[in-house]
Amino acid sequence: MSIKIGILGYGNLGRGVEKAVQVAPDMELVGVFSRRDPSTVKVDSGAAVYHVDSLTDMKNDIDVLVICGGSATDLPEMTPKYAADFNVIDSFDTHANIPVHFANVDAAAKAAGKIGIISCGWDPGMFSLNRLYAHSVLPGGKDYTFWGRGVSQGHSDAIRRIEGVVDARQYTVPVPEALDKVRAGENPELTTRQKHTRVCYVVAEEGADKARIENEIVTMPNYFADYDTTVNFITAEEMKRDHSGLPHGGSVIYSGTTGGQTNADGSTSAINTHVIEYSLKLDSNPEFTGSVLVAYARAAYKMNQNGESGAKTVFDVAPALLCPLSGEEIRAHML
Amino acid sequence: MSIKIGILGYGNLGRGVEKAVQVAPDMELVGVFSRRDPSTVKVDSGAAVYHVDSLTDMKNDIDVLVICGGSATDLPEMTPKYAADFNVIDSFDTHANIPVHFANVDAAAKAAGKIGIISCGWDPGMFSLNRLYAHSVLPGGKDYTFWGRGVSQGHSDAIRRIEGVVDARQYTVPVPEALDKVRAGENPELTTRQKHTRVCYVVAEEGADKARIENEIVTMPNYFADYDTTVNFITAEEMKRDHSGLPHGGSVIYSGTTGGQTNADGSTSAINTHVIEYSLKLDSNPEFTGSVLVAYARAAYKMNQNGESGAKTVFDVAPALLCPLSGEEIRAHML
Repeated sequence: MSIKIGILGYGNLGRGVEKAVQVAPDMELVGVFSRRDPSTVKVDSGAAVYHVDSLTDMKNDIDVLVICGGSATDLPEMTPKYAADFNVIDSFDTHANIPVHFANVDAAAKAAGKIGIISCGWDPGMFSLNRLYAHSVLPGGKDYTFWGRGVSQGHSDAIRRIEGVVDARQYTVPVPEALDKVRAGENPELTTRQKHTRVCYVVAEEGADKARIENEIVTMPNYFADYDTTVNFITAEEMKRDHSGLPHGGSVIYSGTTGGQTNADGSTSAINTHVIEYSLKLDSNPEFTGSVLVAYARAAYKMNQNGESGAKTVFDVAPALLCPLSGEEIRAHML
Repeated sequence: MSIKIGILGYGNLGRGVEKAVQVAPDMELVGVFSRRDPSTVKVDSGAAVYHVDSLTDMKNDIDVLVICGGSATDLPEMTPKYAADFNVIDSFDTHANIPVHFANVDAAAKAAGKIGIISCGWDPGMFSLNRLYAHSVLPGGKDYTFWGRGVSQGHSDAIRRIEGVVDARQYTVPVPEALDKVRAGENPELTTRQKHTRVCYVVAEEGADKARIENEIVTMPNYFADYDTTVNFITAEEMKRDHSGLPHGGSVIYSGTTGGQTNADGSTSAINTHVIEYSLKLDSNPEFTGSVLVAYARAAYKMNQNGESGAKTVFDVAPALLCPLSGEEIRAHML
C-alpha cells in the first residue's frame, strides 16, 4: 500500500527527491521522467527512467508526480499541464507570479479532481509557514528573513556568464550585527546592504583581466550592486576541494508584543516582547528541499484520497498529513 | 461578523487570552466566566463577568469558549463538559493523559457537532508542531527540547510549600554546553542533569533554618533531585523588584541526515546533516500562551463553520486557519 511517486526532472533537486523517497517508509519510486534521451540518464538508485512523453500513459501508475523544474520557464507550463492527470507538487519560487501560477494549477487540478501543491521547499515553504504562524499568534509584529550562509545558485550562474570566468560560487552571508539587533527584538529598519553580504569565489581563465571581472561582478544590477560584495580568485583545484557542496540555510525571526492595553480602570498594562526564531543549517540545499517536497507529496496523496482537489500551498496542509504515523502515534510521541 | 469569544477562568492565562482577543481584528470578548462570585472578579478590559453556571444559558452567544484551567483537575472535567455546548479550546499539558483527554473531548464534541482543540500553547503547541514538521521532513533524526531560561510555576509552587518559605521563584536554565552540542548536529545522549539546571530565588521567614530549606529543595524528588540546583536567598523587596515577570521560552532542535544510500553502481552517496531549530524568547509566558490559544480559537471557529467536529490538536489544523487574512493575502505576503 505504498504511495507511488514519479519524479519529473533529474537535476540536483530530482536527486534530492529520489533520496527522500528511498527513506520514506510508505513510498516507492515508480520512475524518473526526463526530457533527455532516457538511455543517457543515469539514476543513482537504479530506478526506471522514462521519457517525459510516457508520462500520460502512466497516469494510473503514479499517485503523486514531483515536478523538479525551474521556476522561470518549466514550472509555469508543467505544473498546470500535469495537474490534469496527476496529483502534483512543485517548488515554484518566483514570488510575483505566484497568484497566476496558483490560479492556473487550481483550474487544472479542480477540473481533474487532483491536488496541486505549489511553492514547496524551505523558502517558500518552511520559512513561509513560520512567517504565517508568527503573524497569526502575535499580530502586528515584524518578520525578518535572513538567508545563508549558503550558496546561491542563481548568483553563481550570473558570475559564470561573465567573460573570462571559468567557474564561480557565490555565498550569501547574513550580517551578524543585523541578526543581533533583530534577535534582541529591536525591530530595526534594515536596508538590503545591511542585511546580507555576498562572497564570491571565482576561477578565471588564464590571462583574464581580474580587475574587470571583479568590477563587473560588484556592479551587476539586481544581483550585486546593492550589496557589499567580496570577490576571491581561486584555482580550479581550490574550487573543487573547498566549494563542491551546496550548503544553505537561514533564519526567519519574528518579534511582536502583547499587552500595552489601556484597562477599564485607566491603567496601562505592561508591554511584553516575544521573539520567535526558526532557523535551518543545511549541508545540502537540494536534498533538504527534496525532503520537504516528499513530505508534502504524502500530504497531497492523503488530501486527494480524502476527496479534496485544487491548488494548495503549505498554508493549506494540516501538519499531521505530512507524517506517515497515525494520529494516535503523533499525539503520543510529538505533542 | 466577529468571532464571539468566552473565557472560562480568569488567572494569568485568562488575562493573556483577554489581551490577545483585544488585538484580534475579527473577534470580540463576550465575557469572562468564573467559579468565583462575579462581583469579586475585576476584569482588566472591563468585559462582562458571569458566574460559570450562566455558561449553558449563553451557548448561542459564544462561538468559541477558551478554557483556562489547570491540567490536573479542571480541564479533564471542564473541556469534555463544555464541548457538549461550545467549540472549546484548552492547554491541557499532562502528557501521559492526553489519549484519555482526547477521547473524552472527541466523544463529547462529535455528539454535539462541535470542535474541541486540546493541548494548545507553546509546549504542547508550537514546539509540538516543530517536532512533527522536522520528523516528517527528515525521518530518522532526533529532536531535543530545551526549556528556559524561564520561570517554572510548578517548581516555584513546590518550593513555596516548604516550611519557612515566604515566596519563591524557580528558573529553568538550559546547559549551554548541551545546547552547543545539539546545535552542532552531534546528536549527543544527554541525561536530565546534563540538559537543564535549576536556579531558585527564595524569601525565607525571619529566623528560618536556611540550610534545611536549601536541603529540602535540592533533594526534592521529581522536581529537583535529578538536577544541579542553585538556591539563592533574597529579600521580599528583591523578589518584587527582580522576579515579578513570568518570562519563559526554549528551543526545539532537530538534527537529521539525508544521503548515505548505496547506489545502483555500488557507490555510496555523501551523508549530509541538517539542523532545524525553533526557539522562543518570551517576556510573558501566559500572554504568549494566551495568544496561541486565541489563534487556534479562530481555527476552531472556521473548522466548525466548515462542518467539522470532534477533538483536534495543533497537528490537525491547517496553518491558514489561524490567520484572519484571506488565502490570497497570505500567499501574497507570507509565502
